[in-house]
Order: sequence, then structure tokens, then C-alpha cells
Amino acid sequence: MKYRIGIDVGGMSIKFGLVNNNGEIVLATRVVTSKDVYRSIDDMVACVNELLIKSNITINDVDGVGIGCPGAVDSAKGEVITLPNLGWNNIPLAKLLEERLNVKVVLSNDVNVAALGEARYGAAKKYNTSIMLAIGTGVGSGIIIDKKLFEGGFSRGAEIGHTTLYKDGLECTCGRKGCVECYASTTALIRQTKEEMLKNRSSKMWEFVSGDVNSVDGRTAFECSKIGDASAVKVVDTFVSYLGECLLDVCNVFRPDAIIIGGGISAQGDYFIDKLINYCEKFSYGYKDAPKTDIVAAILGNDAGIIGASLLLDNL
Amino acid sequence: MKYRIGIDVGGMSIKFGLVNNNGEIVLATRVVTSKDVYRSIDDMVACVNELLIKSNITINDVDGVGIGCPGAVDSAKGEVITLPNLGWNNIPLAKLLEERLNVKVVLSNDVNVAALGEARYGAAKKYNTSIMLAIGTGVGSGIIIDKKLFEGGFSRGAEIGHTTLYKDGLECTCGRKGCVECYASTTALIRQTKEEMLKNRSSKMWEFVSGDVNSVDGRTAFECSKIGDASAVKVVDTFVSYLGECLLDVCNVFRPDAIIIGGGISAQGDYFIDKLINYCEKFSYGYKDAPKTDIVAAILGNDAGIIGASLLLDNL
Repeated sequence: MKYRIGIDVGGMSIKFGLVNNNGEIVLATRVVTSKDVYRSIDDMVACVNELLIKSNITINDVDGVGIGCPGAVDSAKGEVITLPNLGWNNIPLAKLLEERLNVKVVLSNDVNVAALGEARYGAAKKYNTSIMLAIGTGVGSGIIIDKKLFEGGFSRGAEIGHTTLYKDGLECTCGRKGCVECYASTTALIRQTKEEMLKNRSSKMWEFVSGDVNSVDGRTAFECSKIGDASAVKVVDTFVSYLGECLLDVCNVFRPDAIIIGGGISAQGDYFIDKLINYCEKFSYGYKDAPKTDIVAAILGNDAGIIGASLLLDNL
Repeated sequence: MKYRIGIDVGGMSIKFGLVNNNGEIVLATRVVTSKDVYRSIDDMVACVNELLIKSNITINDVDGVGIGCPGAVDSAKGEVITLPNLGWNNIPLAKLLEERLNVKVVLSNDVNVAALGEARYGAAKKYNTSIMLAIGTGVGSGIIIDKKLFEGGFSRGAEIGHTTLYKDGLECTCGRKGCVECYASTTALIRQTKEEMLKNRSSKMWEFVSGDVNSVDGRTAFECSKIGDASAVKVVDTFVSYLGECLLDVCNVFRPDAIIIGGGISAQGDYFIDKLINYCEKFSYGYKDAPKTDIVAAILGNDAGIIGASLLLDNL
């Protein structure tokens, strides 16, 4: 059997998986991410070799290596253009690794890769066209059209989190104002939760965080909303309306078979997904009498990156 | 030589063209649109036959007929789902015409078709991936990815005019609020021009319309802006910022090679296009350090519909 290796580069750690033809991770390892990219490349070579040795196979048993990387990536050139959190800039990562590993190496953006994993082996398996939105520090997105990854020109499209929700709204990291990411990321949810708590000292959310506003996280409003706290319900419903408008925009532009909601927030499961579905139904999926788009939670979780990266070899 | 026939269905008239292999309309005709769809179908058959007879060819010299139609169209089924202005609903137009003409008939949305015409023979000829925005009564759009039409599921995507500019903003015909179309259509420009004129009675725009606010059209603010009228400049700059944000959204989602601006407003040419380019440059084409997307005016004008429709035969 031939294998592939998927690498998921994150801000804290780099995860590696040996993936079989069924999209299963048969062996995994990880290493702490170094800001020194050359140190991280050494680590990547070592971890790939570790996977091979422990599996009693050689690089000849591997079709190639796929890498999912945050930040801006040029997949055609195999380059990391910029990964601001780590300070990696203009690194020909694919070429450098190919020279060291003697195998084909391809890379793409981390959310693109996760979308591909979900499309092939996860929540979007039964759909031809699916859009993944990964709700976390920001709002990442991956676009799958007819089961193929659509990255946009120079691999620099698929930034649905950086479309407008409020022209002239909150300042965004991208240089614009009012992007979806400013309102519908977990970062934004935490800010919105804190703002509401400061307005309402009797909210149960205060109890939930033991009176410490700094303990607020992406679950605070959701958990207190489930037990009926009015302030928490308000925060969640408003958050749903922010993300919901983005989903309606996606419906109107792509009319995909499905939208996949990923990121930590997908742990809220049906409670969250049902609210999004209700919101989209209320506005007929973006356009009166328009066909329905399924809205589902991602299911591969942290494995999506490794599995999706391994699939890049067929998709770039 | 083989020909194709392109049909451009409009609210007022239906235009027909015999198109050669070079995308040239060698003979054209038109008929007034009837709200009675079966009357219009009779007219279509008659006009197609007129083109054949006058060209001294038969239907066997024609590869097929392509139709561009406003409203919601299901191209896979060849059906007009709804064309509200004419009251055409659930009409299997392709099938009905195929039976009458004995030739393959395909259809798609009118702006999709125009985008295809521009992509093959017009302003987007040299680009692989281009997005057309047609600024008129509404804001229509057509998406060309790798020279192929992308309609979205059920042919019901590509409605970029119905993405959000202001959440909870102005009411839109689609059932949502704050869509691009509410701010960046010619209809919106006329409303914005009138509002500004009523605020400023000394604006030169009053002279331009001979004191009659009902004479305001899509040119009023543009023409007076060119001669430096401050109110007109303000209207145009604000309008550019509305459409500009939509262009930046398009850049971030598709990062296309080019955005094509069509509709009557494209007659403003470089004066308008340069302002859009400046706006997009100011925001680095949507994302800091992002690659540039060309922004150009459509060039096929009213012929885009006929030429584009004739190209549907390769694209659906």
C-alpha cells in the first residue's frame, strides 16, 4: 500500500501524520513550532523520518508530502509568502523539503486543506461543492467546487472572512474595515460576551467565569445561553446573525451543496448549527425561493489538517 | 462554416444574432418582449427562422441556440424558474424551443452570459479568471473561472450584488437587508444623487437636470463631478466606495485576474474605472500585500448578451 504524509503547521505545534489510501492517519507525531523556519524544517525532516522508521517503511512507500500552513501561501510555487505570527516570509518550503526528503512536497493554506479533508473524508463527503468556514482567532475559509480545491488566483482567494459585514465598521487586521472576521470569529465572540457582561452585572455569565471577566472564552455565552440567561442568549443570537449573514452571502455567491462550520466553536454542535440553519431559513438561504444549502458541523476536528494536507497531492 | 444563434431576452425586447466562429454577429434582429411567454416563444421561432432565411442557411448550419435570460434560470434543466418582471414562471424554455427548432438549445442567466461573452471575445479575453459586475437597475454578476462559467448550484449562485455591504441596512428586493445592490446599482446612484441635490440647492446638478429632479439619471452626478461640482464629487466618491468595497470582497474571495464593470455606467469609462482602481489600491486589493486584480470596463456593450449566449453551448 502507498502512503502519504500530511503536515499541519500551527502557531504552537507542527503535526505530522502518515495517511493511508482510506484517509486514515495510521501514525502521528508532533513537534513544537519554531520561529526559526530552518529549525522547523529540520524538525519536519526528523518527524517525517520518525514516521517512516516507526512504520518500517521508506520514503519510496510514500506518494508525497502535503502541508497545510496558516498565513499566505503560494501553492503553485510551493512558497510560504508570509506567516506573520511566526515571522516566516518568502520561504520556498516545498522545494527545501523536497531536496531533503526526495519526495514530492506540496502546500496550501491551512483552512483550504481542512476543507479538502472534510470534503473527501469528513462532513462534506456527500457534497460536490462545499464551503468551509473555520471559526477561531479569525474566520478562515476553504472553497471546494466539484470536489476540487479553489484557492483563487495566486492561492490568495478564499478569504471569505475578509468580506464586508459593515462597510466602515470595526478595523480589521487585513487593512480594511467591517470584515466578517471582526464580528463572527471566536475573538469577536469573546469581546461581545465581555461587553454584554459589563452591561449586565446580574448575568449568569459572571458566575460561569467565577467573576473573572478575563476567564471569558468562546463557550461562556453559549453555555449560559443553553440555561436561558437572557444576556447570554442575546450575545449568541447576535453572533449567529453575524455569521448567518456571511452564510447567506456564501449561498448567494456559490449556492454550495453545503457549508461546513469548523473551528473550536463547532464543538457547540447542533445547538449552534440549528440556530444558523434557522437564521438561513428565515432569509430563504439568501434569496427568496432559493434552493437550500445544508449547514453542518465539521467532524474531522484536529485531524482535518493532516488528512486534508495529504490530499493536496491530487488537488494542486 | 458552422454558426450559432445567440438570444438575449430583455424586459423590453428580445435580441437575436447569428454568430460565426469568430464570435462576430453576422446578422441580427429583434422583437418586442411579450409577457405571454408562448407568444414570445412563437416570436423566437420566427426570428430564428428569419435569421436563417436572410442568411440563406438552414438550421443544419447551426450548432445550436444559446439564450441569456434575466431572473432565475436553471440551466441544467433549461428552465426559466422565475422572471418576475414578465411573469414567466417555471417555463421549460430550452425544451419548448428544441421541439420547434430541431436544434440544441441551452440557457443561462443574462449576466452570466455577458460575462462569458466578455471573457471570450471582450474585455476579459486575456484573463483566465474574471468576474463581471453589471451595474444597472440592480447589480448582476457573472463568474468565469479558468475560462468556464461558474453558475453555482442549481444555477443560482453568482449573485454578488446580493452580498452584504451593511448588515441590517436598506431593504433589498431579495428579502435581505443591506445588499450591495441597494447601494451600488444605478437605481441607488440616482437615489443618492437626488438626496444630495435636495441637501444642496446650489449644486450644478440642478442646472444639469434643468431644475427637474425627476430628470436625474445615472449620468447626472458623474457629469457634474467631472466639472468639479462639490456635491456631485461627493456622490460619485461615495458611490465608488460602495462598489469599491464589493470589488475588494470579490478580490478576497476569488482573487480573479480581472473584474469587468458592465452596464450603462461603464460608458463613464476611465473616469469611473480609475476611481475604482484607486479605491482598490488604497486597500491593497482587499488584503495587505495581496496581488493586484485588473479592473476594466466591459467592451461588448449590448452585443455581450448575444455573443455570450452563443458561447453557452460549450459551457453548460
